[in-house]
Amino acid sequence: MANLPLPPPSAAWQPLLDLALAEDLGSAGDVTSAACLPAGCCLEAVLEARQPLVVCGLEIARAVFARLDPAIHFEASSHDGSHAARGEPLARVSGPGVALLAGERTALNFLARMCGIASWTRRFVEAVAGTGVAIVDTRKTLPGWRSLDKYAVAVGGGSNQRFGLYDGVLIKDNHVAAAGGVAAAVKAARASAPRHLQIQVEVESAAQAEAAVAAGADLLLLDNRSPDELRSLASRFASRLVLEASGGVTLDNVVSIARTGVQRISIGALTHSAPAADVALEVLVGEGCP
Amino acid sequence: MANLPLPPPSAAWQPLLDLALAEDLGSAGDVTSAACLPAGCCLEAVLEARQPLVVCGLEIARAVFARLDPAIHFEASSHDGSHAARGEPLARVSGPGVALLAGERTALNFLARMCGIASWTRRFVEAVAGTGVAIVDTRKTLPGWRSLDKYAVAVGGGSNQRFGLYDGVLIKDNHVAAAGGVAAAVKAARASAPRHLQIQVEVESAAQAEAAVAAGADLLLLDNRSPDELRSLASRFASRLVLEASGGVTLDNVVSIARTGVQRISIGALTHSAPAADVALEVLVGEGCP
Amino acid sequence: MANLPLPPPSAAWQPLLDLALAEDLGSAGDVTSAACLPAGCCLEAVLEARQPLVVCGLEIARAVFARLDPAIHFEASSHDGSHAARGEPLARVSGPGVALLAGERTALNFLARMCGIASWTRRFVEAVAGTGVAIVDTRKTLPGWRSLDKYAVAVGGGSNQRFGLYDGVLIKDNHVAAAGGVAAAVKAARASAPRHLQIQVEVESAAQAEAAVAAGADLLLLDNRSPDELRSLASRFASRLVLEASGGVTLDNVVSIARTGVQRISIGALTHSAPAADVALEVLVGEGCP
Amino acid sequence: MANLPLPPPSAAWQPLLDLALAEDLGSAGDVTSAACLPAGCCLEAVLEARQPLVVCGLEIARAVFARLDPAIHFEASSHDGSHAARGEPLARVSGPGVALLAGERTALNFLARMCGIASWTRRFVEAVAGTGVAIVDTRKTLPGWRSLDKYAVAVGGGSNQRFGLYDGVLIKDNHVAAAGGVAAAVKAARASAPRHLQIQVEVESAAQAEAAVAAGADLLLLDNRSPDELRSLASRFASRLVLEASGGVTLDNVVSIARTGVQRISIGALTHSAPAADVALEVLVGEGCP
Amino acid sequence: MANLPLPPPSAAWQPLLDLALAEDLGSAGDVTSAACLPAGCCLEAVLEARQPLVVCGLEIARAVFARLDPAIHFEASSHDGSHAARGEPLARVSGPGVALLAGERTALNFLARMCGIASWTRRFVEAVAGTGVAIVDTRKTLPGWRSLDKYAVAVGGGSNQRFGLYDGVLIKDNHVAAAGGVAAAVKAARASAPRHLQIQVEVESAAQAEAAVAAGADLLLLDNRSPDELRSLASRFASRLVLEASGGVTLDNVVSIARTGVQRISIGALTHSAPAADVALEVLVGEGCP
Amino acid sequence: MANLPLPPPSAAWQPLLDLALAEDLGSAGDVTSAACLPAGCCLEAVLEARQPLVVCGLEIARAVFARLDPAIHFEASSHDGSHAARGEPLARVSGPGVALLAGERTALNFLARMCGIASWTRRFVEAVAGTGVAIVDTRKTLPGWRSLDKYAVAVGGGSNQRFGLYDGVLIKDNHVAAAGGVAAAVKAARASAPRHLQIQVEVESAAQAEAAVAAGADLLLLDNRSPDELRSLASRFASRLVLEASGGVTLDNVVSIARTGVQRISIGALTHSAPAADVALEVLVGEGCP
Repeated sequence: MANLPLPPPSAAWQPLLDLALAEDLGSAGDVTSAACLPAGCCLEAVLEARQPLVVCGLEIARAVFARLDPAIHFEASSHDGSHAARGEPLARVSGPGVALLAGERTALNFLARMCGIASWTRRFVEAVAGTGVAIVDTRKTLPGWRSLDKYAVAVGGGSNQRFGLYDGVLIKDNHVAAAGGVAAAVKAARASAPRHLQIQVEVESAAQAEAAVAAGADLLLLDNRSPDELRSLASRFASRLVLEASGGVTLDNVVSIARTGVQRISIGALTHSAPAADVALEVLVGEGCP
Repeated sequence: MANLPLPPPSAAWQPLLDLALAEDLGSAGDVTSAACLPAGCCLEAVLEARQPLVVCGLEIARAVFARLDPAIHFEASSHDGSHAARGEPLARVSGPGVALLAGERTALNFLARMCGIASWTRRFVEAVAGTGVAIVDTRKTLPGWRSLDKYAVAVGGGSNQRFGLYDGVLIKDNHVAAAGGVAAAVKAARASAPRHLQIQVEVESAAQAEAAVAAGADLLLLDNRSPDELRSLASRFASRLVLEASGGVTLDNVVSIARTGVQRISIGALTHSAPAADVALEVLVGEGCP
Repeated sequence: MANLPLPPPSAAWQPLLDLALAEDLGSAGDVTSAACLPAGCCLEAVLEARQPLVVCGLEIARAVFARLDPAIHFEASSHDGSHAARGEPLARVSGPGVALLAGERTALNFLARMCGIASWTRRFVEAVAGTGVAIVDTRKTLPGWRSLDKYAVAVGGGSNQRFGLYDGVLIKDNHVAAAGGVAAAVKAARASAPRHLQIQVEVESAAQAEAAVAAGADLLLLDNRSPDELRSLASRFASRLVLEASGGVTLDNVVSIARTGVQRISIGALTHSAPAADVALEVLVGEGCP
Repeated sequence: MANLPLPPPSAAWQPLLDLALAEDLGSAGDVTSAACLPAGCCLEAVLEARQPLVVCGLEIARAVFARLDPAIHFEASSHDGSHAARGEPLARVSGPGVALLAGERTALNFLARMCGIASWTRRFVEAVAGTGVAIVDTRKTLPGWRSLDKYAVAVGGGSNQRFGLYDGVLIKDNHVAAAGGVAAAVKAARASAPRHLQIQVEVESAAQAEAAVAAGADLLLLDNRSPDELRSLASRFASRLVLEASGGVTLDNVVSIARTGVQRISIGALTHSAPAADVALEVLVGEGCP
Repeated sequence: MANLPLPPPSAAWQPLLDLALAEDLGSAGDVTSAACLPAGCCLEAVLEARQPLVVCGLEIARAVFARLDPAIHFEASSHDGSHAARGEPLARVSGPGVALLAGERTALNFLARMCGIASWTRRFVEAVAGTGVAIVDTRKTLPGWRSLDKYAVAVGGGSNQRFGLYDGVLIKDNHVAAAGGVAAAVKAARASAPRHLQIQVEVESAAQAEAAVAAGADLLLLDNRSPDELRSLASRFASRLVLEASGGVTLDNVVSIARTGVQRISIGALTHSAPAADVALEVLVGEGCP
Repeated sequence: MANLPLPPPSAAWQPLLDLALAEDLGSAGDVTSAACLPAGCCLEAVLEARQPLVVCGLEIARAVFARLDPAIHFEASSHDGSHAARGEPLARVSGPGVALLAGERTALNFLARMCGIASWTRRFVEAVAGTGVAIVDTRKTLPGWRSLDKYAVAVGGGSNQRFGLYDGVLIKDNHVAAAGGVAAAVKAARASAPRHLQIQVEVESAAQAEAAVAAGADLLLLDNRSPDELRSLASRFASRLVLEASGGVTLDNVVSIARTGVQRISIGALTHSAPAADVALEVLVGEGCP
C-alpha cells in the first residue's frame, strides 16, 4: 500500500506560518488574554472536529503553538488522512494560557483550510472510486500556500501534478502559437527544457493531439471538452499516453467524465474554492500550571 | 461620501507575493515558456472577468508582473471596487513574453481570491441594504492573507473589525472564566490593555450583557443566538452600545438577522469560504517587442 | 490590580535581536574571546544594576544569550517592573564562555535602553501620582524598537497609545486642511476608517474642539497649549471626552499640566530621549564547565 | 582634507528601515490619511531643523519615502555634516499625499536620532579642538543601529572605533583572567586572532600597561582612571602607543581629560544617551498632483 | 535549434546576492574607496576575460552593480554561452566610483565561478561530441548555488538533471534496502511519489536492472561500473530505457565511457570542482561623472 | 599554542544553510525517501572520509541535520583541524530516516567544500613550513560563503586577511590613480578611514613602496612580481613593514616565493579553486527507531 503523504518540508511553510503569527499579533500581542488571564496561568484544550472531515494539518497546528511557546504540549489523537466524526477530538493542547489562546485562531485557520481541501478532495476521489481515474490538482492554489494546498489534496486521496512552472512542461495555446505549432512547441521543449521533466500538451482537436503524440508528448490536457469529445479522443489516444480532462468539473459531472476513458481529471476548485472545514478549540477551564 | 479603501501598505503583502513567486518558479523558472518562446519575444495580454464580479487586487497583480520584470507595462482599465461584467477587460499587460507568462497564474490566483471575497461580501452588503446594519469581517482569514482579505472585504462594501489580537479587545468565554466573570474581565481589560482599544464582550445571556455594559464594554458579541434572542437583547441594549451578531450567517438568513435590531453582523465565511472569482489572462498573439 | 504588562510577542522583536547580533558579530565573531579563552571554558556572571532603576527587558536579555548558545543558563533574580537598587543583581548567567562574552554587550545595550525608558517614565508617573492623570507615550520611538519602547513605557507605569498609524485615528492639522475642516475630517474618518478605532483630533482652539466633539471625536489632542488654555479647554470639554496635553513636557512642568484638568499627558521624550540606565555584567572568574 | 564620511551601505540599514515601516504601518496602513485625504491628492512639504543642529541622515530619510512610494520626490537642500540653524530647511519632499504623511514620523524618528548623535558628538569634538585628541565611539550603540549610530558619530566629527567584536581585538579584565595574565592574553590574540586586527588592552595599572606593551599591544584602554593616573600613564606610554581614556566623560570634564596626554577619549554616551534633535516636516497645503 | 538557457528566476539567486554584498560590505562599506575617491567621482570600467572561456553570469554581474547603485550603467558586449578569447571585453560598466569599486570583487566572484563551470562543462561536452551522449549535472552543487550552478552547466552545453529532491525520484541503495528490494522500491515510488516525476534507479547488477525495468523505472543509474560492465548493461537495456553512467569521470575517460552505449554521463565535478575562470575588471581612469 | 579557530557565528552562515535546504527540498521535499522508507523508520549512518583530508565543517553538518529534524542525533568522532585517513569516520548520525536522507547531500556538499579548502590550504602551509612565511587568504571566496571559506582556510593552518571591504584598507591601482598618487591615497585613508584599520598598499615599484612606507602604510602588497623583484623589495622593506606577495602562486613555486624574504603569501585559489574533498555518508541498514 502506498505510504501516507508526508507533510512538506518545514522550509516550505515556515515563512507562511511566521507571516500568519506576525499579522495576528502585531507589536502588542494578544492584549485580551494578557489582561484577563492570571499571571502564569496554564490551560488545557482540545482541538476538535465540528463536522465530519478528513484530518489534515496537525503538524502545522503543532508548529503554530510551538512557535509561540515551546512549553506548550501538543498531543495528537488523530493523524492526517483519517476521517473524523463530528465532535471527535483531534489533539490535546496544554500549556501557558496566553500563548495557547494567542495561537488558537491561527492554528484553526490553518486546519480549517487544510481539512477543507482534504475533505473536498476526498469527495471527488470517492465519487470516481472504481473507475481507475485519478483526481489531480492544479496550480490554482492560494499564493503562499502551494505546498500546503497540494499536501492537503494528497491527504484527501488526490494526486499531485507539477508543483510549479519548474517541474513539468505544460504547453498551452500561447506556447503553441509562439512556437509555431504543436509539433514545434514539443520539439522545442524536448530540446531546451530539463530532460527529466514530462511534457504535457493542451490540445483542442484530434489533429493537435496527433501532432503532440507524434512529437513525443507524455500527456495530453483536454480542457473544456464535451464528454463526447473526451470519449472520442480517449478511444484514440488513451492507449498511447495519459489523457487529462479539465474544466468545469463538479461532483455532479465528475463520474460521467471519468467514464469517458481519460486517465485523470484535474480540478482547480479543489484548492481555489474548497469550503473551510469547521474545527474548534475547546478550552477545558480549571487546569493550572504544574 | 466615504473614500474607497486604499490597498494595504506593500510591506503587508510583499512577503506573501515573494513566497508566491518563489513557490511557482523554483530554481528553474518557467521551463515551458523559456523553451517555446522565441528569444526576446514580447506579448500583449488582457486581464478579463469571466463572470460578473467586484474588481479587487489590481495593484497586487501589477506588482506580480513588476517583480518579474520591471519592463512589463500594466495599464488598468478598471479599478478596485467597481463592478465588472462578464468579459470586461480589467487591465492590459504587455512586455517580455517569458516574464509575462511566468506571472500569469500567480497574478490570477491573487485576483481570483480577492475578487471572490469582494464579490461575495457585496452580496451580503446588498442583501441588508437599507437596514443600516453593517457587514463585518472576522479573523478567520487565510494565514498570511490578513491584510489582503480584509481589504477585499472593504472593497466589497463590508467593514473591517480588529485586524488582529493587538488592536481590539474581544473578551470570550475563556477569558471570562479565567478572569472570574464578565465584570472582572472587562475591568481587567480596562486596567491593563492599551487604553485606545475598544472592548467587546461575547455574552450568552441578558445577565452577562448587563454585567458587560455596566463594566464599560463598548460592544457586545452575540454568537449563535436565535433571532428571538437577538431581538430581545437588541431591544434592551442596542440603544446603549453596539451589538454584533455572528454564527451561521448565510445569504438566506442575513436579512432576518439584520432586522432583529443588531447594528452589525460578522461573517467568517466572507474570508474562509468565499468561492474564487473567474478571472483570466487572454494573450493577444502576434505582438512583437519594439 | 492590573496585570503587569507582558513582553511583546517575540515575532515583534526577534528580527531586531537578529540584526543586533549580526552587526556585532560579523563574519568572524568575537575574535578576542575566541583567542583568549581556553577551549570549552565556561563562565558564570551576574547582570546587575549600577544605579537605582526600574527593571525592564530581562526576557530580551535571556533571548540574546539563548540565540548565541542554547546551553547558556539564564536565571532571573528580579522581574520587569520591579525597582532595583544600585548593585542589585538582576540575573545570573552561566555557560560556554565565548558565547557568554559575545552576548554581553548586546544584552546590556537592550537592557540599558529598556531600563532607561522604564525608569524615566516612572519618574513622570510618580510626579503626577494622585492627580489621576495618565502619562502616555507617542510614536516617537526608535525605528525598529516600537514594541520594545512601548513595553518599557508600560513597565514604567505609563500607558500605551496607538502603536502605529494602523490602530488609531489621529487627525492633525494636515488632515484637517486636506479634508476641509475639523468636522469634515472626523466624518471622513468615521466613514472610511475601520470602525473599531478611536478617533482623536488635534485642535488649536475651542471652536475646533467644539467641532470635533460635535462630529463625534473620541479624544482631543492639545499640543503646545499654555496651562491657561489647557485649563480653559478642560473645564469645557473634559466631562465630555478625553483630553490629552502634549508638547514640551518636563519633570518641572508635568505636575502643573496635570492639574489643568486634562486626563492624559503624552511625552515623546519618554522614548526619544530617555538616558540609558547603567547596567553591567560582572563575570565571576574561576567557574569551569561541568 | 579628509572626505566627509559616506553613509553606510544600504544593506546595513535597509532591514532596520523595513522593520520601522512595518511596525508603523501594520496591516492597515495610515488609516487617518487614507480617510481624510482626497483620492490622488499630492502634497509638498519641507523637512526643517527646529533647533541648531548638525545634519545627519538625509539619505535614510530619502529612502523612507522612496520605499513607500517611488513617486515621492525628495530634494535635499543641505547635506550631512553641515550645521543647520533653527528653522533652516533640510529637504523638500513632494508627491502622493498618503504616502508622504505615512512616512513622516519614521523619517523624522531616523533624523532626530542621527542629527542628535551628530550634534552631541560635535560638542565634544569642539570642546577638545586644538588638543589633538580624538573623540571616539564605543559599541554602546542601539541594537540594530550600529552602522547608523557610528556614521552619525563620524558626521559629528568623531572617530569610529571597531564596529563589532569582529574587527578589532579588545582584551578586557575577563579575557586577562581567563588567559592567565595580560601578556598571555596578548600573545594568544597575536597567535589566534586574524592578523590584520589591532590589539587593544584594557589595563588597570602601570605594571599591566608595561606587560601589554611588551607583549605587543597596539593600544591601551584606560577605563575609569583619575586624571592623575591618566597623566602618569600618558607620560610613560603615550610615546610608545595610543592611549584611550574612557568612563564618566562629560562636557564638563572632557577637556581636562584631553589634557592628560592620552590620544583619544571614548564616550559611550555619544550613542546610548544623546538627546534627540528636534526636526519637523512642515506640509505646504494646497499643492495638487499634476 | 534549441533556445539558449535563460538565467534562473531572480528569486532563486537574489538572496545569495544579498548575502554576498552584506558579507563584503559589513556595516562600514568599502572604506578604501570612500577615503580615496573624490566625492562624486565616476568611473568607467571593462569586464574582460583573462583566459579563453565560455561566458556565463552577465545578468548576475549586472544585478550586483544595480543593487549597489541603480545609477551604474552596465552594457554587455557579449552574452552567456558565447566563447570569449583572452582579453575579450564582456561588458562595460560605468557610474558612481565608490559603488562600482565596491561591487567589483563580488561581481567577479560570481563570474569566475559561473564562467568556470560553463567552460569546464563545455570541455566535456566537446569531448563527447558526435557520440550522442549527454553530459549531465548532479546535486553536488555548492550550497546556496543550485540554480546558478545548474544554469552554468546548461550554458556550457550540459543537460540539467533533477534540481533537487523534489522534482525527480532517484532510488539508491538505501532506499532499496529500506523498501525491501528494487521492485518494491519502484512500486512504492509509483504509488506515493507525485505522478509527473520520472523514476531513476541506481542498480549494481544486471539482475537489479532487470527488476527495475520490469517495475517500470524510467532511467537507470550505473555508478562506478567498469567500462565492460557499462557495455554489457547498455547492450541489454539501452534500447528499453535511458542509462546514465557516473563515478570517477574525467576528461581522460569520458570518451571511452561515452562509447559504451549509455545515453548520459553525470559528473559531480562539473559543479563541485570546476576551477574558477580568470575574469577581471579593468578601470579606465580619468572618466568623470557627467 | 594558538587556539584552534572557532566556527564563525551561526548568524553568518545560517541564511546560507537555509537557502541550501530550501533549494534542495522545494515544496515537495525528498519524494524518494518519503515513498520508499517505512513510516517512522529510523536510520543510523556514518560520515566518513573517502580520501585523506583535513576535517572541516562538522558543526555545519550537525546544523543541517538539526534543522531538518531536532530528533536527529549527531555525534562527532573527529574535530575540525584534525587529519583524517581514508575511510576514517568523522561522525555518527542517527534518527528519523526521511530527514536523515534528506539532509545527506546538503551536509556532504558543505563538508566537501570545507574539507577541500582546509586540505588544500594545509598543503601550502606545509610546503612553506620552517620559512616563517604565512599563507593568507583573499576576498576571492564564493559569494555567500565568506565566513565559511575563511574559517576553512584557518582550519587548514592559513591566516585570515581582512574579511571584507570594511575591516581593512587595501589601496590598489585604481585608488592610487583616483587619489593622485600613493602618498596621497595613504594620507586620505589615514584621514578618513576608521582609525583602527590597517592600511595595505599594492605597489608596483620600489619608488611606490618608498612612498607608501613614508606615508605610513602598514603593509605592502606585491602582486605578480618576479622572484627577483620580490627579493629586491624584501631586502629593502621587509624590516620596516609586512610584505605580501600574490599572483600565480602554486604548490610548485610557493617555496621559492617564500624564500624571497616576504612575510606572507596570499593565494586566491585557496578559496576559488580548491578541489572538493571526497566525503560520504554510509548508512548502516537495519537500525530501527526506539
